[in-house]
Amino acid sequence: MEVTSHLGQDLDLGNRCSRLAFNWAKRSFPVRGELEGQVVLTESGSFANLLQFGNVRIGITSDGIGTKIEVAERCGRYDTLGFDLVAMVADDLIANGIEPTGISNILDVDRLCETTVDALMGGLYGAALAARMAVTGGEIAELGGRIGGYGDGMHFNWCATAVGYFPEGRESLTGLQIAAGDVVLALRSPGLRSNGFSLARQILARRLGDSWHAVAGPEGKTWGEILLTPSLIYAPHLYDLLKSGVDVHGFAHVTGGGIPDNLGRILRASGCGATIGDTLPPEDFFLVLQEWGGIPDRLLYHSWNMNHGMLVILPEAALNGASRFLADAGFDSRAIGRITSSPGIVIASRGREGGEIRYERSGK
Amino acid sequence: MEVTSHLGQDLDLGNRCSRLAFNWAKRSFPVRGELEGQVVLTESGSFANLLQFGNVRIGITSDGIGTKIEVAERCGRYDTLGFDLVAMVADDLIANGIEPTGISNILDVDRLCETTVDALMGGLYGAALAARMAVTGGEIAELGGRIGGYGDGMHFNWCATAVGYFPEGRESLTGLQIAAGDVVLALRSPGLRSNGFSLARQILARRLGDSWHAVAGPEGKTWGEILLTPSLIYAPHLYDLLKSGVDVHGFAHVTGGGIPDNLGRILRASGCGATIGDTLPPEDFFLVLQEWGGIPDRLLYHSWNMNHGMLVILPEAALNGASRFLADAGFDSRAIGRITSSPGIVIASRGREGGEIRYERSGK
Repeated sequence: MEVTSHLGQDLDLGNRCSRLAFNWAKRSFPVRGELEGQVVLTESGSFANLLQFGNVRIGITSDGIGTKIEVAERCGRYDTLGFDLVAMVADDLIANGIEPTGISNILDVDRLCETTVDALMGGLYGAALAARMAVTGGEIAELGGRIGGYGDGMHFNWCATAVGYFPEGRESLTGLQIAAGDVVLALRSPGLRSNGFSLARQILARRLGDSWHAVAGPEGKTWGEILLTPSLIYAPHLYDLLKSGVDVHGFAHVTGGGIPDNLGRILRASGCGATIGDTLPPEDFFLVLQEWGGIPDRLLYHSWNMNHGMLVILPEAALNGASRFLADAGFDSRAIGRITSSPGIVIASRGREGGEIRYERSGK
Repeated sequence: MEVTSHLGQDLDLGNRCSRLAFNWAKRSFPVRGELEGQVVLTESGSFANLLQFGNVRIGITSDGIGTKIEVAERCGRYDTLGFDLVAMVADDLIANGIEPTGISNILDVDRLCETTVDALMGGLYGAALAARMAVTGGEIAELGGRIGGYGDGMHFNWCATAVGYFPEGRESLTGLQIAAGDVVLALRSPGLRSNGFSLARQILARRLGDSWHAVAGPEGKTWGEILLTPSLIYAPHLYDLLKSGVDVHGFAHVTGGGIPDNLGRILRASGCGATIGDTLPPEDFFLVLQEWGGIPDRLLYHSWNMNHGMLVILPEAALNGASRFLADAGFDSRAIGRITSSPGIVIASRGREGGEIRYERSGK
């Protein structure tokens, strides 16, 4: 159970609520006993989003796209958010080694606008196709004043649950196999995906005023366009990578909390750390936002993905095969660091301060 | 794909958006082809919420509890909403013959309140236990001004996706087996479940003012308490009923649209109609709301469940067995009508007007 703060507020409160929700959920795990749908626990007793039905293991995960929706409202463009929604849940599943197969979505609106609903659902269809997933369910709820947003159009919040298939005989990607010397390969992501919008919006509004989205940004696009950049969906290609037999020890889907939290989480089982000595060069807009916001490098890498969308952890011997495979699939990827036996994550910053940043805690 | 209007507004627009979302989703069904997770279509080519993984069929459905949350905010009581959330999705699955096994929930909040989150998640745990489901996932998203509500506390919207198991060899409950002469058995529901709140709230606010929830109602409770009455969860008992071998031809989970829409939907495949000659006596509060709102009987049965939570359609020969089974499970149930060969649904009203109401259209 996760708490995602799209406001960037009290992280401790978020963590307490997250733990509290997880502890209640955990108490319910035994209810299925030996019945169909029982909760599969990993070797270390933790939950890997897997349910057992007969000889079949099914994965399930839920997420939403937070306040990125405000950017779509500002730009009046609604056909790309489906890519963000699918990416959030599909890439969380594949990070556990689960092939995403279906997505059920819930759209809460203040009032209906047919054109906007059409653009959202058309985008969801396109993204589902790209992810090789069927849209297997949906609910649109009209909630009036319980939903707010920017401007005069239809306001909404959008979330989804994805289900997926965990092939028989495959090892669960819990990170237990991760060992010192393994390589960390990064898949480049254009833009923020669906996290870190609170900080970005605050900085832009303070610097550029309420219509910040229409102001030209550093890369020949408006700030609205830059922030609305749709998420890449890695899942089907990473599934093919696993299927090809390349030896992957773990994935880290870089969402809220950036590299430190998400890499940290998959390192917990092994107790290892990582030295990320060759981070990807960030898009210019990150550095402009950093300057305007007076953001220290440590916060920069903790708040935003800094163009790292997915990390693949694998033994050195598998690196060339994986790199070729991902290049053929059209992804920009590169080895950015190594797993270390000592815990903690060290990142060579490409922010304005530069130098090495050390994050002590591995994951939340 | 459903559109649930919790505002009671433009139903045509809702239906158009619902069709539009479904048509986009349907275009995605072929994407899994013969792969795991393919979408199962019924004999008549429609979608019954089933996905095929190897020899296992998995059901999936999503829903939320709409503006019933405002009543909880008014009463300051949060530990019963979990029963409403589980009931919405679990009882939708069992209505398709699918045993609910797991639930993944998404809680969108304006800002976090630990006490409220604890009450919600504790209630969800209790409801999941009652439904024999594991809480297999969760996400809490802080969304600030995108979420609104009543009073000063944490505001939120809450939705969930349930997964379930469809036993091998079982017939899908698509309603094709329904035939003239079958009996309609009703399971009594106290209160509104999670639909029809818009109309009820409007009437109460107009009659009693903004603090209507604190005013004493007709049954020794406040109006807030009456409207907050938690949903019964029928699913595990109906699953046991199916497993016991009782011959059930169909279920209708009475949600938005009342008996006409929900019974109508399951009657579509057979082309049958129904005469409901002995509706359950409604709780007093329904009649008080009817009077205050000047609601015609036709709208009454179309807006609210009128204490019918679930309808079971079965051959006459199965009636005694089913009734005994449900009584032993602690449910108040009764035969209320019969399936007819001619389409349309006729309801003997127990509203203030009385007499017979004829609904021409079968379902949305």
